[in-house]
Amino acid sequence: MTAKTMDELVALCKRRGFIFQSNEIYGGLQGLYDYGPLGTELKNNLKQSWWSSMVYERDDIEGLDAAILTSPEVLKQSGHEDTFSDPMVDCKSCGERFRVDQVPDYCKEEDLTEPRQFNLMFKTTMGPIDDGSSFAYLRPETAQQIFVNFKNVLDSTPHHLPFGIAQIGKAFRNEITPRNFIFRVREFEQMELEFFVKEGSDEEWHKTWTDLRIQWWIDQGVSKENMEILYVPDDELAHYSKATVDIMYKFPHGLEELEGIANRTDFDLGSHTKDQENIKIHSNVMRNKNSNSRLAIQNNETKKWEIPFVIEPSAGVDRGVLAILNESYKKEKLDNGKERIVLAFEPHLAPIKAAVIPLKRNNDDLVQKALALKSTLQQQKLGRVIFENTGNIGKSYRKHDEIGTPLCITIDFETLDDKSVTIRDRDTMKQNRMKLDDIPAYFRNYIEAKKL
Amino acid sequence: MTAKTMDELVALCKRRGFIFQSNEIYGGLQGLYDYGPLGTELKNNLKQSWWSSMVYERDDIEGLDAAILTSPEVLKQSGHEDTFSDPMVDCKSCGERFRVDQVPDYCKEEDLTEPRQFNLMFKTTMGPIDDGSSFAYLRPETAQQIFVNFKNVLDSTPHHLPFGIAQIGKAFRNEITPRNFIFRVREFEQMELEFFVKEGSDEEWHKTWTDLRIQWWIDQGVSKENMEILYVPDDELAHYSKATVDIMYKFPHGLEELEGIANRTDFDLGSHTKDQENIKIHSNVMRNKNSNSRLAIQNNETKKWEIPFVIEPSAGVDRGVLAILNESYKKEKLDNGKERIVLAFEPHLAPIKAAVIPLKRNNDDLVQKALALKSTLQQQKLGRVIFENTGNIGKSYRKHDEIGTPLCITIDFETLDDKSVTIRDRDTMKQNRMKLDDIPAYFRNYIEAKKL
Repeated sequence: MTAKTMDELVALCKRRGFIFQSNEIYGGLQGLYDYGPLGTELKNNLKQSWWSSMVYERDDIEGLDAAILTSPEVLKQSGHEDTFSDPMVDCKSCGERFRVDQVPDYCKEEDLTEPRQFNLMFKTTMGPIDDGSSFAYLRPETAQQIFVNFKNVLDSTPHHLPFGIAQIGKAFRNEITPRNFIFRVREFEQMELEFFVKEGSDEEWHKTWTDLRIQWWIDQGVSKENMEILYVPDDELAHYSKATVDIMYKFPHGLEELEGIANRTDFDLGSHTKDQENIKIHSNVMRNKNSNSRLAIQNNETKKWEIPFVIEPSAGVDRGVLAILNESYKKEKLDNGKERIVLAFEPHLAPIKAAVIPLKRNNDDLVQKALALKSTLQQQKLGRVIFENTGNIGKSYRKHDEIGTPLCITIDFETLDDKSVTIRDRDTMKQNRMKLDDIPAYFRNYIEAKKL
Repeated sequence: MTAKTMDELVALCKRRGFIFQSNEIYGGLQGLYDYGPLGTELKNNLKQSWWSSMVYERDDIEGLDAAILTSPEVLKQSGHEDTFSDPMVDCKSCGERFRVDQVPDYCKEEDLTEPRQFNLMFKTTMGPIDDGSSFAYLRPETAQQIFVNFKNVLDSTPHHLPFGIAQIGKAFRNEITPRNFIFRVREFEQMELEFFVKEGSDEEWHKTWTDLRIQWWIDQGVSKENMEILYVPDDELAHYSKATVDIMYKFPHGLEELEGIANRTDFDLGSHTKDQENIKIHSNVMRNKNSNSRLAIQNNETKKWEIPFVIEPSAGVDRGVLAILNESYKKEKLDNGKERIVLAFEPHLAPIKAAVIPLKRNNDDLVQKALALKSTLQQQKLGRVIFENTGNIGKSYRKHDEIGTPLCITIDFETLDDKSVTIRDRDTMKQNRMKLDDIPAYFRNYIEAKKL
């Protein structure tokens, strides 16, 4: 699919501090990863870019940050308790349990039990009594808390339809077979928007959001050629969906979903609303006896309560990080016959925006000048700027290519005389001499010009 | 303690969309809260301010973002499995369970069982087999993942002692009696730094970090008079601590801990390292047979492996939000005899930095000018700027006082003629006429001058 392998990405991620296996010193826990110093910045930058595009740059979307622990009532009404499961079989011979489609060859068919549904939600006891009466789920998606907060948000903000609620946060699924690095994991992050629209305008908005989301991924540096649009066939749609478009990406392990954009109709608000019998609900929802809130909007003319339809662009943060690492990773042959690895991140995603490097490690004059410049650039609040005190410029350049730092600025002895510095560009590898005083403006222009 | 009550804060938080009870439409789940549109921004701004002060403005701290699900091995070695518990009794008469110090009067002493230890960690089954053999904890603090990643971070970054690892993230404790709004909850966020230093320099660094952290809270708008420093008495220290300083804050419900700064000595790395018998460990640690990593640094001169000491400033994000809401909340008598509520946030924490308001709702010229200005200000990336299309300036000002927006900018018919606007200051309530072209620079200076 792509020119690099997953193993190369995994190795770089560990070596350079992007992503580590979680609980590694005790042998690791399957399907869990920890983001290291650079991975944390990359992930935060991606989330920030999404949040900006949703909440800051538009006037019709509000943010939310809800709890992970979720009442069973919520996930019963949403259908997760009944349907969020995989069919499993036990092998009576080896004693292991497998997903039906993943039974290994060494298990004989006659030794397998009938398939049973295994729910993928993590459950935990809440409160002091551990008799099963009082428990919560770790949310399997962030979406449900958006729906149950629909009225809270509407009552505290000035919005009318169409408007949206955006949320970024952790979700958890007890995957039987986590695999493919951070692609299929048990703990992950989602960026979900629930965009509420009038019935009848839902198909148009579905198209609009599909286009917007594809463009957003392109703006993050994901190339168009590596994405494919999949219109999920009707017979494969989730129970809540009228239509779903998947943005598929050519991951190192294959073509898989990066983001899904679903037309969830009135299923969710209809499931969680009180007074279902007096409101027209198009979807087939479970009867709700416990909700205390009417999740509908009163039509000013007809005075009837109407349940908005909802369009949901739902993206995986970790999958996004993996796609962006994959896109950015390049092995280049250099003129001198050597090779370099470079992560050609878009500047707004780069974990480190610039490195300021004194030519000589122990020279106080150089170090002080470098520290002062680092501080000036950092104050521009464009992201992390580091002071790199290695005393080995060549090695520093190689490292910053490999971690995707767009600019390296070297303070040398000429700097002390004529106040000029060397500025080196990650992508072109060109080095230019520039006045120290011009660096802050150059830096801002460079990062913001490419930035969205 | 303070001029306002918790009830007033809770009501404002719900009304204006800062904080909602979680799972509210199903009656709520005790000890869980959801951050609404404004609370999310406030909390994110506070976290960003901490992250900047730790990771961006210093050259000796790296960030981390580890998984919440944690191996039992980690929390056994850390001592949490054995000691992170409260003593509980059952009442044989009413069948309820209580913490020993919270038994209600209606339970007779002769009906109570002997106290038993109740562990406060949430537990969940991981993997397909639910027989207790395979489970994980929801981390009760973010600190432990920092320790178990010590070597991963050290191997991928250029640091020597002293250096630190900072992390912000969710932690979970199955509190028997969650209370006092977002002060004592079951799901919360922490901002924790583990700062690794040479043995012998630990007491000095403990003092340094205590001073830095107090100043940081002052910079967030927490007044000195409402903080008290508590030197935790020796007989109340946690098992890992040589000395702990608590920054206490006068919350509406009383004086309680906002942040703790502990000298954890070599307890944590000593607990999680392999090869304990060949490394000098000062603390009394549990024998570790399972770690595969040496969490120590080789002394260049003596060639001996030494375990760094660690200073831990550990702050609660939610407690910080509560303290800042409490500090900012003011009821002011106005000259006209009326009263206003204002949240006088520091500008860098304000959920909305500026509101741009067309004087008349349906006037296209005004609306277009307002939208253009909103977009220009938003592009400065100083935080959220909103377009407020209510057509009621007085009401907008009152609202933005109450949610702490520093600046309101009104576009009126004069704007169309002479390109001037009215800019209104939250704190002084003064309105000035200013050229539209001067607004972006004024805005930046205003937010950044007060910003840290």
